[in-house]
Amino acid sequence: MISKLIGRIRETNAPIVVGLDPMLDYIPAHIKEEAFAKFGETPAGAAEAVWQFNRGIVDEVYDLVPAVKPQIAMYEQFGVEGLMAFQKTVDYCREKGLLVIGDVKRGDIGSTSAAYAAGHLGKTKIGSREYSLFNEDFATVNPYLGSDGIRPFLDVCSKEDKGIFVLVKTSNPSSGEFQDQLVGNRPLYELVGEKVAEWGSGCMDGEYSNVGAVVGATYPEMGRILRSIMPKAYILVPGYGAQGGKGADLVHFFNKDGLGAIVNSSRGIIAAWKQDKYSSYTAESYAKASRAAVQEMKDDISKALENL
Amino acid sequence: MISKLIGRIRETNAPIVVGLDPMLDYIPAHIKEEAFAKFGETPAGAAEAVWQFNRGIVDEVYDLVPAVKPQIAMYEQFGVEGLMAFQKTVDYCREKGLLVIGDVKRGDIGSTSAAYAAGHLGKTKIGSREYSLFNEDFATVNPYLGSDGIRPFLDVCSKEDKGIFVLVKTSNPSSGEFQDQLVGNRPLYELVGEKVAEWGSGCMDGEYSNVGAVVGATYPEMGRILRSIMPKAYILVPGYGAQGGKGADLVHFFNKDGLGAIVNSSRGIIAAWKQDKYSSYTAESYAKASRAAVQEMKDDISKALENL
Repeated sequence: MISKLIGRIRETNAPIVVGLDPMLDYIPAHIKEEAFAKFGETPAGAAEAVWQFNRGIVDEVYDLVPAVKPQIAMYEQFGVEGLMAFQKTVDYCREKGLLVIGDVKRGDIGSTSAAYAAGHLGKTKIGSREYSLFNEDFATVNPYLGSDGIRPFLDVCSKEDKGIFVLVKTSNPSSGEFQDQLVGNRPLYELVGEKVAEWGSGCMDGEYSNVGAVVGATYPEMGRILRSIMPKAYILVPGYGAQGGKGADLVHFFNKDGLGAIVNSSRGIIAAWKQDKYSSYTAESYAKASRAAVQEMKDDISKALENL
Repeated sequence: MISKLIGRIRETNAPIVVGLDPMLDYIPAHIKEEAFAKFGETPAGAAEAVWQFNRGIVDEVYDLVPAVKPQIAMYEQFGVEGLMAFQKTVDYCREKGLLVIGDVKRGDIGSTSAAYAAGHLGKTKIGSREYSLFNEDFATVNPYLGSDGIRPFLDVCSKEDKGIFVLVKTSNPSSGEFQDQLVGNRPLYELVGEKVAEWGSGCMDGEYSNVGAVVGATYPEMGRILRSIMPKAYILVPGYGAQGGKGADLVHFFNKDGLGAIVNSSRGIIAAWKQDKYSSYTAESYAKASRAAVQEMKDDISKALENL
């Protein structure tokens, strides 16, 4: 699966993933009004608004980027109806040729982890039949429970040609509370990074592994070190834009071949129409503002990568 | 919410939670056949089988125990239909007076963590209205992202009188890979335990805090230390029974007042009918086998607690 992602990154010349993390506040009033008129101010109404909002953005950006990353929490907050909108979004993005990174951050053990892996990436057996359900291409996974939580995902990655990104060093301010603790003379995130390299060595797909890592754009120096600890792991980089990560800092996450990282932006793209910078766009043309924001991000990253 | 749980533990004299983690293999053939006859060998059929299986068990054990712990992965593996069965199970258990611990192990940051907290424990605002959606009483939470991931849950716990159990030392064999790493001269799980005590100090509800911890029955010595590090945290103890934890080891997790811990058993109870020990029960009376297994677990733990 990682070779497929690399292929799409090369085609689009954009190591960029659009985070589909819709908050109701980001959605233009006309979309919400129409959805609420149909379904009321209900979970079904919210789910419809989210889905129509996503579809508008996907239609405007699918030719510019290789992948999207829906954050499942933003759907799960609306209960089962919200998860139906998640499913619709995943299916639609795949139809449009986008790869889908399910930002689910699941992590459990043994048969439980296997259930998550089956439901999100693999197949679930029901009687004599098998079903691909949420059917994302990649999922993010939490490593706190150790190998027991990761192995069932590795099995699915190998069997179904899917991929995972393991949380290593997250972009948030408090990520250091545990992740930066020194074990001997090295921070914990380096140990996790070593494990990612080890887990990934059995899941190679071309030059890179189907086992990648999440490392926040907000910690570029740590990104540089992790890049060398996990040379074959693709790094999914959140925290660009709204969270403060800058294009110039991103070079540390890439390998000399210009590959090895894919940068996420969520709010900066999907809520671009609310920013002063894109005030020439109206609520009706919100998706075109997202397209402009993708193009700008593309330029920013291209420029940064000239210094590789 | 923790005081409500303590009240129910006292009434039932059972510091026990029944893990509703249904695998299709655990479900008697007649239930599956009926569900598949109605809905086919489909996700809807699997969800129906899971729900009917759960209902049978809940009807037999609701008067014996204070709480249940559905593991959401076992539902999520069946996609949206599975999550509908999760929702039905939560609702039904609450109707029967059981407290519900959603074993969701969610963990993210900022507004994303807030979305999980709203969807599982709190309320989601949609237009001018608010909805309690999955509406569990407690949820399990992963701490790898630090305070940023926990704080939105604390807010909901305080506002809505709900509770969380933070993963500290999990029951699985590889839990030590990261959790046991020495930071200075102390394992990481102790630092996480200290944070649990700190987070919990602002969420007191009577003698205990609405912020509890998960510590596996398989590590009783670590349980003893964590018990003293987090004196006000209720400990949710998985790993009893099928995973190898024994009743006699459980004393370490309790305080001298006989409170402070609640022990989970999943497979040992819900799949009791498949064990040699309960061979006098048939597939038709599977739920009565679960009742017998609960009573035996109750006796085992009562005996162990005589040595407090």
